[in-house]
Amino acid sequence: MKYGFSERVKYLKSSAVRDILKIINEGNIISFAGGLPEEKLFPVEAVDKAFHKAITTNKKALQYGETEGVPELKQLLAERMKQKGLHRSPDDILITSGSQQAIDLFSRVMFNKGDVILTENPTYLAALQVFESYETNVIAVDSDEDGMVIADLEAKIEKYKPKCIYVVPTYSNPTGKVWSLERRKRLLELAKKYHVVIFEDDPYGELQFDDNEQPPAIASLDTNGLVLYTSTFSKTVVPAVRIGWIVGPHQIIRIMAQAKQATDLHTNSIGQYALVHLLRDFDIEGHIQTIRRTYYERMLVMKRLLESADIDGLEYIVPKGGMFFWVKLPEHVNTTELLKEAVDEGVAFVPGAPFYVSNPEQNTLRLNFTNAEPSLIEEGMKRFLKVLEATTVQA
Amino acid sequence: MKYGFSERVKYLKSSAVRDILKIINEGNIISFAGGLPEEKLFPVEAVDKAFHKAITTNKKALQYGETEGVPELKQLLAERMKQKGLHRSPDDILITSGSQQAIDLFSRVMFNKGDVILTENPTYLAALQVFESYETNVIAVDSDEDGMVIADLEAKIEKYKPKCIYVVPTYSNPTGKVWSLERRKRLLELAKKYHVVIFEDDPYGELQFDDNEQPPAIASLDTNGLVLYTSTFSKTVVPAVRIGWIVGPHQIIRIMAQAKQATDLHTNSIGQYALVHLLRDFDIEGHIQTIRRTYYERMLVMKRLLESADIDGLEYIVPKGGMFFWVKLPEHVNTTELLKEAVDEGVAFVPGAPFYVSNPEQNTLRLNFTNAEPSLIEEGMKRFLKVLEATTVQA
Repeated sequence: MKYGFSERVKYLKSSAVRDILKIINEGNIISFAGGLPEEKLFPVEAVDKAFHKAITTNKKALQYGETEGVPELKQLLAERMKQKGLHRSPDDILITSGSQQAIDLFSRVMFNKGDVILTENPTYLAALQVFESYETNVIAVDSDEDGMVIADLEAKIEKYKPKCIYVVPTYSNPTGKVWSLERRKRLLELAKKYHVVIFEDDPYGELQFDDNEQPPAIASLDTNGLVLYTSTFSKTVVPAVRIGWIVGPHQIIRIMAQAKQATDLHTNSIGQYALVHLLRDFDIEGHIQTIRRTYYERMLVMKRLLESADIDGLEYIVPKGGMFFWVKLPEHVNTTELLKEAVDEGVAFVPGAPFYVSNPEQNTLRLNFTNAEPSLIEEGMKRFLKVLEATTVQA
Repeated sequence: MKYGFSERVKYLKSSAVRDILKIINEGNIISFAGGLPEEKLFPVEAVDKAFHKAITTNKKALQYGETEGVPELKQLLAERMKQKGLHRSPDDILITSGSQQAIDLFSRVMFNKGDVILTENPTYLAALQVFESYETNVIAVDSDEDGMVIADLEAKIEKYKPKCIYVVPTYSNPTGKVWSLERRKRLLELAKKYHVVIFEDDPYGELQFDDNEQPPAIASLDTNGLVLYTSTFSKTVVPAVRIGWIVGPHQIIRIMAQAKQATDLHTNSIGQYALVHLLRDFDIEGHIQTIRRTYYERMLVMKRLLESADIDGLEYIVPKGGMFFWVKLPEHVNTTELLKEAVDEGVAFVPGAPFYVSNPEQNTLRLNFTNAEPSLIEEGMKRFLKVLEATTVQA
């Protein structure tokens, strides 16, 4: 039988990263490809206790629940965000099945075919996938090390009249960059001036390496109902729980909840209650400190090895937090080609091209430093640099 | 700030049932309104053990997982469905966040604006919500106690050229009906003749009251790749785990998995692994037997009280399984009006009108018998019949 699919299927692409990951998981390869947190840091005992409590304390917790989320969890999240300067009522929060679903539900209620979204270039691959699946028109804004270039942003707002500006301003995926305070403020000013909504995607915001350098969330600077802010427990607790949240203007959150009701009724509430207990009973701040220290050490190992490389034209951004190095190679190198050689040598990364909205730079790649022990990073980077040196010498 | 939403927001409606439930949960009301399983039957100890094992056995279980679902769970589901005559490989299965998400993902990859879907009338409310949110054209087919009326079905297939026929053929929500074997076969014949896909929604199929009367799933009779079949653990384990599955032609399942990847990456895998352990270590068949017996007893209590009512024009279908009585009152009664009086009297039900695609019968209502103890059913039905008798006498 031949099946007739919807038009939007044309815009559905499988993630190149996830497809590569599938292959890599099969071999004896040191992978810097995924965006995976370190499993050894998973707070297994605390998660176990929290689920036990969630399951055995109250049978109501096992029944169908509210689409908006478990009220106690929304309350705790409102309090946590207040500590970060983001003042919102629990009613302005929607619990989602990971922050990926927040991007999807937001797109569902906001975008018509052809609507323009401005993003950085490169930016989070799986957000681009969602935007494209709604047949929107994603336009790249120039950026430098401090964030979007404001002149280009304003020019593109005027030219394209976007409905939304999507940003990952803090320890971004894939570039590891962090926007300056100045740029955050300028972005907000322009959003206000032109009535554009900002979608602030912040899965990595708590993974900073310098405790004194935490930049404020753009949402915490917003007094005009311009910013939707989403984050997740995937990087600070465990990914498998698939629980994130989005906070913003009630009018948008309310309609997203209606869309969520049709989509999946509500996010798994055993996990939501478990997070309630975890946040109450477990020293999550201390745990996040441990994650930061561990990732910082690993970043330094990778940095040292990148510094040791004798390759003309090798550039990289030293991350101040998060999970990634963004690497630029000499212009003649195509990293998609390079990946095959790297895999033969027993190491993997993600080519940079799929992260671009337009004009992909084929000589870029992303390295993850959080999912391998320092000794494996050493060995993996040796393999990586060997492949790199061979390629750059060849040319 | 004024926000510009997408066109599809116009088609998003909050579920009348869920909105009513919110109000009812606040008062001291005996509710026959929800579609809630009995909490006292939740296998808490087994669920607790299964989650403990899922969390503590393997840290990989807490990491990001495959979009298609946990392989061991898909394997176990393939085996369970084989026992029911449905022969499909684990690769033809997608694990979803409840069967609601299966309906949504299917719609996302299949339907363009204006595509026609044929359904029973009345039918599952939240499926209608999804279909409408994709701006489809849902057309009702006449049905009797055995299922859709085949002559009307064929006429409407010819007239409207539907892309899909959506059915809840076994102990349906809201009518409690079960399709005869003959109608199941005729539906398949027509689907084959006209190349139409069937979506078989089967959340209640395991809740039969007579062990010898289990009708085969339509999907188990399909040899032409015509049927998508979805079910859930919400009614047999606990709703809060939010795990369902859909099985069908690989070509459709594969594209639904791509859509799911953009939507929420994957369903929470702690719950998926917990279900793996539960299916292996726990006597789920025995547990389902207990659920069936309990629900059967409760159904009989409600039936006895309905029989005792002295109301001309009161009609109802005695369910052979599932969770609901579908009740028809004298034509002059409007059950939406009646609900207010019932709530004043301390009892609630769901008016039938929202379940209709078109031509809603305002004198219908749905009674759930699974979420109240027999003594509460007695008391609730007394209140209900009191309101009913007052209304029908008044007229």
